[in-house]
Amino acid sequence: MKMLQFAVLFALLFSSSSHAADFCVAKLKGAGSPAGYACRMPSKVTVDDFVFTGLGVAGNTTNIISAAVTPAFVQQFPGVNGLGLSMARLDLAPAGVIPMHTHPGASEILFVVQGKITAGFISSSANTVYVKTLKKGDVMVFPRGLLHFQINAAGIQAIAVVSFSDPDPGLQITDFAFFANDLSSELLEKSTFLDDAQVKKLKKVLGGTG
Amino acid sequence: MKMLQFAVLFALLFSSSSHAADFCVAKLKGAGSPAGYACRMPSKVTVDDFVFTGLGVAGNTTNIISAAVTPAFVQQFPGVNGLGLSMARLDLAPAGVIPMHTHPGASEILFVVQGKITAGFISSSANTVYVKTLKKGDVMVFPRGLLHFQINAAGIQAIAVVSFSDPDPGLQITDFAFFANDLSSELLEKSTFLDDAQVKKLKKVLGGTG
Amino acid sequence: MKMLQFAVLFALLFSSSSHAADFCVAKLKGAGSPAGYACRMPSKVTVDDFVFTGLGVAGNTTNIISAAVTPAFVQQFPGVNGLGLSMARLDLAPAGVIPMHTHPGASEILFVVQGKITAGFISSSANTVYVKTLKKGDVMVFPRGLLHFQINAAGIQAIAVVSFSDPDPGLQITDFAFFANDLSSELLEKSTFLDDAQVKKLKKVLGGTG
Amino acid sequence: MKMLQFAVLFALLFSSSSHAADFCVAKLKGAGSPAGYACRMPSKVTVDDFVFTGLGVAGNTTNIISAAVTPAFVQQFPGVNGLGLSMARLDLAPAGVIPMHTHPGASEILFVVQGKITAGFISSSANTVYVKTLKKGDVMVFPRGLLHFQINAAGIQAIAVVSFSDPDPGLQITDFAFFANDLSSELLEKSTFLDDAQVKKLKKVLGGTG
Amino acid sequence: MKMLQFAVLFALLFSSSSHAADFCVAKLKGAGSPAGYACRMPSKVTVDDFVFTGLGVAGNTTNIISAAVTPAFVQQFPGVNGLGLSMARLDLAPAGVIPMHTHPGASEILFVVQGKITAGFISSSANTVYVKTLKKGDVMVFPRGLLHFQINAAGIQAIAVVSFSDPDPGLQITDFAFFANDLSSELLEKSTFLDDAQVKKLKKVLGGTG
Amino acid sequence: MKMLQFAVLFALLFSSSSHAADFCVAKLKGAGSPAGYACRMPSKVTVDDFVFTGLGVAGNTTNIISAAVTPAFVQQFPGVNGLGLSMARLDLAPAGVIPMHTHPGASEILFVVQGKITAGFISSSANTVYVKTLKKGDVMVFPRGLLHFQINAAGIQAIAVVSFSDPDPGLQITDFAFFANDLSSELLEKSTFLDDAQVKKLKKVLGGTG
Repeated sequence: MKMLQFAVLFALLFSSSSHAADFCVAKLKGAGSPAGYACRMPSKVTVDDFVFTGLGVAGNTTNIISAAVTPAFVQQFPGVNGLGLSMARLDLAPAGVIPMHTHPGASEILFVVQGKITAGFISSSANTVYVKTLKKGDVMVFPRGLLHFQINAAGIQAIAVVSFSDPDPGLQITDFAFFANDLSSELLEKSTFLDDAQVKKLKKVLGGTG
Repeated sequence: MKMLQFAVLFALLFSSSSHAADFCVAKLKGAGSPAGYACRMPSKVTVDDFVFTGLGVAGNTTNIISAAVTPAFVQQFPGVNGLGLSMARLDLAPAGVIPMHTHPGASEILFVVQGKITAGFISSSANTVYVKTLKKGDVMVFPRGLLHFQINAAGIQAIAVVSFSDPDPGLQITDFAFFANDLSSELLEKSTFLDDAQVKKLKKVLGGTG
Repeated sequence: MKMLQFAVLFALLFSSSSHAADFCVAKLKGAGSPAGYACRMPSKVTVDDFVFTGLGVAGNTTNIISAAVTPAFVQQFPGVNGLGLSMARLDLAPAGVIPMHTHPGASEILFVVQGKITAGFISSSANTVYVKTLKKGDVMVFPRGLLHFQINAAGIQAIAVVSFSDPDPGLQITDFAFFANDLSSELLEKSTFLDDAQVKKLKKVLGGTG
Repeated sequence: MKMLQFAVLFALLFSSSSHAADFCVAKLKGAGSPAGYACRMPSKVTVDDFVFTGLGVAGNTTNIISAAVTPAFVQQFPGVNGLGLSMARLDLAPAGVIPMHTHPGASEILFVVQGKITAGFISSSANTVYVKTLKKGDVMVFPRGLLHFQINAAGIQAIAVVSFSDPDPGLQITDFAFFANDLSSELLEKSTFLDDAQVKKLKKVLGGTG
Repeated sequence: MKMLQFAVLFALLFSSSSHAADFCVAKLKGAGSPAGYACRMPSKVTVDDFVFTGLGVAGNTTNIISAAVTPAFVQQFPGVNGLGLSMARLDLAPAGVIPMHTHPGASEILFVVQGKITAGFISSSANTVYVKTLKKGDVMVFPRGLLHFQINAAGIQAIAVVSFSDPDPGLQITDFAFFANDLSSELLEKSTFLDDAQVKKLKKVLGGTG
Repeated sequence: MKMLQFAVLFALLFSSSSHAADFCVAKLKGAGSPAGYACRMPSKVTVDDFVFTGLGVAGNTTNIISAAVTPAFVQQFPGVNGLGLSMARLDLAPAGVIPMHTHPGASEILFVVQGKITAGFISSSANTVYVKTLKKGDVMVFPRGLLHFQINAAGIQAIAVVSFSDPDPGLQITDFAFFANDLSSELLEKSTFLDDAQVKKLKKVLGGTG
């Protein structure tokens, strides 16, 4: 069959290198680059590299925020490397809250799978608040880099699936950035106008020093 | 309060124009551009522009594919314009199938909300098939531009939420591209090697002429 | 001269439209797009569209932060539209501070023109603090989207010139986002763990309600 | 010569590393990344890395499609790595056809060097067909990701030069994706509505199993 | 036919707006943006918008450079708007030369259709020259923004087809930039080290003043 | 403290790999890629990787151009890798000039720190000159890839800080590209229309051969 030979030949032209137009499953251990991780050899990639099963179980919400974020970012799900998206699961117990945070490198879109969630974001220069209580099946989008939060709005467990416009969106929770490291209280208070007592109280809760 | 004045002043510096760093809610009726639709004035934007409620209800699956795609692309959900992502809901009745298709401009990530779905994609040059049966909570990613499909894999209604790496991913269903327009049977048969009887049969089903 | 005719002819081929490969000076009043503002007709553009004189004078620092940010973003300097950069001037009186903030859409690079400045940023997931006192001529870079601050580190007026990797970097000052709008104290406290007294005190200073 | 020293000095500042602003000739054997292959050391690059001679000879068209695609993609022509383009040569014998296919990551522009070619593409959501018979010197553009084909439209050998908007455009021929691998006939038939006889016939021609 | 209804319905969902995922044929008269021109309504677009016939005829080479560049950039060929590529035809009479020039916004790839061409480019910081005489069928790539030239290398008419990695690559011919405008001889001589006599001689040829 | 555990846990999820959403400090010795250099392990990065002190001292202007460019590009300042910007310092003695040049991959924005500078750029197809004498505090932007120059416009030392829209903007000084390498005088004269005497004179000054 001549056509068969053509197909086989064509495939051979392209199959022998570690970069392909189609995908670039991450080698997490290798050296990354500004565009993401290095690619695994396509010949060693299987369907399981494109499937992630970690979002099927609820995150553990027995913590102070009564909530859990389970990421399927490139670090957990190497198949999304270079594909311009990633995912996560949010679990919020009745009093649960995903505290104020930003994703430095991505927009987010949220779908409520179960329960009710009050979500909001704040625009930058005008400081306008966009807040809404979402019910099952509702979708909300949070523009890249802006402060936003999600709070359980009903008496039952809430679940949401969120997607991002980047395989590696980052997650900067304001409280952790302020109170969970060794940033000196003096610099923190000067740059946030928070009172010393407030700073020390939250540093204690979150393990901050300085 | 001097600081109050500073805050107000700062907001004024940025609030008077129709483009802002934060978001660009689409004016669907205006002239689009390669980067998306023109922006509505931020002062006229409300939280409802960032919320979409159309994915909360099941699509109508009483059709020949026993399935429905409900898009929340920029055309339906103008708030995602310029944000690098969008969403859709898939409903598959017991015999439902989302036929072979591509998204010309986006990768896709799928989360199974209910039921079981057999999903797969085909790589380009090597024509390798990556197929898997996914259960509730499983996630699968489909690299941009590649042929893929989803088929109900259990006897019950299946639901999935999918996200895309572009507000306007496009959707090219191969059968519709081949058989639902006026592409002449002669050109179609020459360029696909499909038999004339097959072409005519599917043109009849899908409304194609020529 | 045949070559002259060639040159004139060639210029004519390209001079009659409102978009050019070279630049796209913003029409701030027109409809923006995700990629920036619409372009003014090149024939109406003069060198003054590429020159901005507003950074030559010190900003007014007689305010509660004893500091001023004078932006040369696309809204003030339409010539940078589409060129992937912008600039600003920072003035810090002896006790001056540019409070904790992010630029949702850009990285920043700072050059100390005069005085000493203690500057720092916080990484996202690891919450690591990178802080340094910079003297005249020192340069520091702040990666896109991350929380950062600048504080006068000497007894004299400090001046810095900062550049951004986007014509429209945005500026979200955390205090203004939290306390200078109508975000309800209840939601704010739940999502930040700040005490009610602290929230109300800063809302009063910054004009917040709710 | 002071200026000479300046020139030499300046060159030295930049010549000692494997990444340069100018170009990034691919190391095909190394680890790729989402943005392309790693760069060879500029000092080892010669003009021959930027020249490709493989398109000067006709491809072998004695096959079932009576046509040949000779690619100068990054895998064959490492000099285009990172430069946002690539090329290929099409040869079509009198009955030749480049079957329905997509390039998942690039637009294509075609120039007819010799003969006549009937070319067409199909838009996504509207399924509109754009088809035209092109003569020598005509140019046609095929938007990224959309199904398209080229067929010899005269009794003589046709030649075209095509360029792509990516060094690694990919090539997914629908027939090969459907019939030249181990995708089960059951899944294929369900997802394409093709008859079993048709599927088995073409699998036989193209070497498919399952 | 239920499937027919589904196809028709689906098309309707997407067909009513002036921006589409698939293409964005330029409205040259409207306001451009940094990402290109505004889109014409898809419903008014025909196949002729994707076909350009202007490269089928030789450019007029009876001028001082004995050469012609016939562009199929977005200004001449609106169909390439937003598609990341464009094309041009080069005609070089026996003594023809495309003088030293850059494309500020694109890489270039050249295919020799007829004759022989000596082509070269110069790297930036190291000032290395990459020069080669190309024969019919040879391909050479010129990285974005770098100075390059093409000179007829045989006694016969040469023709090349070149493609660019942008719909609007720009073209800055150094001689025209220096000598075909009103840049004062004083500034030009200071900034190029060219002699006054040389500057005045070429200004006369190219129509420069000042 | 459960919240403390949550914070620590979350950090652990992300801290163990060499690519991070936040930054990608360059490993200059490793293999680069089209998107920049490989990333150093975040755990080995300190604040000093984000600080550059080389722009605090004047460059040596005792050379034939009476000027100096001190770059803080990615090769000198690895912290800017992947962040979309870089910086440089210009020193111009009273007769100093930064000769006609382009940055192949970036736009530039200039802030006059001291003295007066006459700066200009030339548009591509129309060859329009945009020139202005800038005083202390003035800002001027130079669109990517276009020829531009800076000349001291007063009797005193001038200093400017310039930023670029890329970590690796490149720098192609036309005189060096023409006269500081082994490009044959014949090809150079044919492609620039410069006289042989002029070419040989400047080759001698700049060390060119051929």
